[in-house]
Amino acid sequence: MREVSVSLGSRSYPIYVGPGILREVGDLARRHLSGERVLVVTNPTVASLYAAAVEESLAAVGFVVRRAEIPDGEEYKTLATVAALYDAALGAELERGDTVLALGGGVVGDIAGFLAATYMRGVAFVQVPTTLLAQVDSSVGGKVGVNHPWGKNLIGAFYQPRFVLADVRTLATLPLREVRAGLAEVIKYGVIHDAAFFAWLEANFEALLKLSDAAVEQAVATSCAIKAAVVSADETEKGLRAILNFGHTLGHALEAATRYERFVHGEAVAIGMVFAARLARRLGYFEPAGVERIAALVRRAGLPDAIPPDIAPEALLDAMRRDKKVAAGQLTFILPEAIGKVRIVRGVPADIVRSVLVEY
Amino acid sequence: MREVSVSLGSRSYPIYVGPGILREVGDLARRHLSGERVLVVTNPTVASLYAAAVEESLAAVGFVVRRAEIPDGEEYKTLATVAALYDAALGAELERGDTVLALGGGVVGDIAGFLAATYMRGVAFVQVPTTLLAQVDSSVGGKVGVNHPWGKNLIGAFYQPRFVLADVRTLATLPLREVRAGLAEVIKYGVIHDAAFFAWLEANFEALLKLSDAAVEQAVATSCAIKAAVVSADETEKGLRAILNFGHTLGHALEAATRYERFVHGEAVAIGMVFAARLARRLGYFEPAGVERIAALVRRAGLPDAIPPDIAPEALLDAMRRDKKVAAGQLTFILPEAIGKVRIVRGVPADIVRSVLVEY
Ligand SMILES: NC(=O)c1ccc[n+]([C@@H]2O[C@H](COP(=O)([O-])OP(=O)(O)OC[C@H]3O[C@@H](n4cnc5c(N)ncnc54)[C@H](O)[C@@H]3O)[C@@H](O)[C@H]2O)c1
Ligand SMILES: NC(=O)c1ccc[n+]([C@@H]2O[C@H](COP(=O)([O-])OP(=O)(O)OC[C@H]3O[C@@H](n4cnc5c(N)ncnc54)[C@H](O)[C@@H]3O)[C@@H](O)[C@H]2O)c1
Ligand SMILES: [Zn+2]
Ligand SMILES: [Zn+2]
Repeated sequence: MREVSVSLGSRSYPIYVGPGILREVGDLARRHLSGERVLVVTNPTVASLYAAAVEESLAAVGFVVRRAEIPDGEEYKTLATVAALYDAALGAELERGDTVLALGGGVVGDIAGFLAATYMRGVAFVQVPTTLLAQVDSSVGGKVGVNHPWGKNLIGAFYQPRFVLADVRTLATLPLREVRAGLAEVIKYGVIHDAAFFAWLEANFEALLKLSDAAVEQAVATSCAIKAAVVSADETEKGLRAILNFGHTLGHALEAATRYERFVHGEAVAIGMVFAARLARRLGYFEPAGVERIAALVRRAGLPDAIPPDIAPEALLDAMRRDKKVAAGQLTFILPEAIGKVRIVRGVPADIVRSVLVEY
Repeated sequence: MREVSVSLGSRSYPIYVGPGILREVGDLARRHLSGERVLVVTNPTVASLYAAAVEESLAAVGFVVRRAEIPDGEEYKTLATVAALYDAALGAELERGDTVLALGGGVVGDIAGFLAATYMRGVAFVQVPTTLLAQVDSSVGGKVGVNHPWGKNLIGAFYQPRFVLADVRTLATLPLREVRAGLAEVIKYGVIHDAAFFAWLEANFEALLKLSDAAVEQAVATSCAIKAAVVSADETEKGLRAILNFGHTLGHALEAATRYERFVHGEAVAIGMVFAARLARRLGYFEPAGVERIAALVRRAGLPDAIPPDIAPEALLDAMRRDKKVAAGQLTFILPEAIGKVRIVRGVPADIVRSVLVEY
């Protein structure tokens, strides 16, 4: 088991990563939590696979465990689901000193985290992520929340867990498409922060795709460490944290332009990373070999590396301009200068973006 | 104008108190806020009296100002109202760097604060309290939230404003019953923390009841300073902050036992303070003269000092045991040892509480 720590002063917390550690959640909970009750928030898909192990482990060390299941799917990441969870938490007699534990992917984690942040002005929160995306990204950093009909994640808070437990063996049951999508974020960490990790990925990608324990543990722990370092430096996204959006300017636009139906997030990010690399090359920041290394890893992950020809460049430009992260209509990109190093570039001229979009 | 500061590290903020300072909100906002837009959250009662002054002052320094009105009344302090405000904020194109400003009493402040805490993971928040209770209590300390059908303030967060502006002249339009209710909390601050302030209240109570500018400014500023000191020492209510609940153990029980219909909060607290003083005397902590000084001030405020005989002691004991702040069924009281000094007493035996209840 590896331990990565997220340094945020009095809100610091550890991330435990390893194969088969799900049943250690009880002991870890005893170490990190006071309180008597734990409300496990999960969905039926994940519950049928992993809830028993988690709940037995917690009960074995004396916690009173209750479960609240929410329907599976991003479309249930709403305030209405949170409202139902308030009822469930009260029904479970969860009190101030007690804990909400998220068992599942990013959807469960974001919703349960918002519940924890806003139930009785905040109760203890634990993340047990079971998708690769959740293990390397959404469970770390404290962003919690739900969608609004007018946009994703518009309702939310920053709220840190007491600890995160990522059992990499839970990924064995994850659909392949979800594993690949998670790998997009893993590749991202290499590009934005760590050339050695990127090289390690190039050397170990087959083992990773086969979900070998050692390779996944290494990839998840390193990804978490990179995200933790960025988040520690900028908890509430005032500056540096923006580099985590590498590949996401176009990625979000691709998702929005296709109404979140065509791509899973990681696929859109994969295309967006290759695009950002090409844009950086076009602007003279980045060498052609770097673009090719990123594109090659994306392809080895089974992810798309180019914009499908039926998606119009103007539709993507429009979507980028409408993005809530766009300050005063300026197009902002995270652009690589080298593998392992990116810069935040504001006000990239629309016609340069367009010309790289149409190159495809 | 007086300035009181709430020390919470990077989340510290000032409270401005004075007569006729409503129109200074624009200048203060310029000093404390970035962003372009301000969403003023208020209700029709308060809007008709004070919204124009606030909005003109903000517009005069260049803010784009939008207003969202919520219905007047505690019964609208719900998640449904917050949901409507998310729509209003999005409709007003409020972005991450922008501000939510609460203009009104504690209900508006608590709801608007929860909106600010959870809209786009938190936007800047300003409190412009217009009831005495809000000026001396609810606008200071960062508790925000809404009620759940099963209990008050069960949904919420800790979220600090950027500044608070209390124009004591706005109290001139407040119904007398609301002024009196606010005075209960003012008296409370004297008892829990400041014997000199209590003596000042005894000497200046007529001026205060007449809402003389100087007296109200002094009372509000001192009350805020005391609450600020307590909150600074214990932001998230782990220990010391409990002393703010002096008078509230029985106060909450009186409100609950009469279904929140019979007493306004301050009336219940007034009875609760006199009761706590008597309980302290009974337990040998407090001298009889102290009980009488508290009861006398309560009566001068036009507040009730005794439990109405039709409310059964057992109903109150039951309500106290059901209070969400009751840890493991123990009855906890904040009991005066002297005017200006209280202690938190856990596990007060029910039959002693009962015997003091039936004394009335
Ligand atoms: N908070 C953040 O910082 C952050 C960051 C990135 C993404 N997100 C959010 O995360 C969400 C996406 O998360 P996700 O990709 O994990 O999707 P998800 O939570 O919907 O999970 C994908 C699917 O896999 C299933 N599943 C989960 N674990 C499984 C397992 N071990 N075996 C089999 N099936 C399993 C789920 O039930 C679901 O059907 C989005 O809502 C996104 O906004 C949040
Ligand atoms: N957040 C906290 O720390 C905290 C502390 C104490 C109480 N509270 C909450 O505060 C709420 C009670 O606040 P309140 O007592 O201010 O009640 P309130 O907000 O309902 O205001 C009382 C009435 O006075 C009206 N009003 C407000 N200002 C006025 C003015 N200047 N002139 C004329 N009318 C005016 C309001 O419209 C309302 O009808 C409760 O919901 C309580 O839970 C919160
Ligand atoms: Zn992503
Ligand atoms: Zn009170």
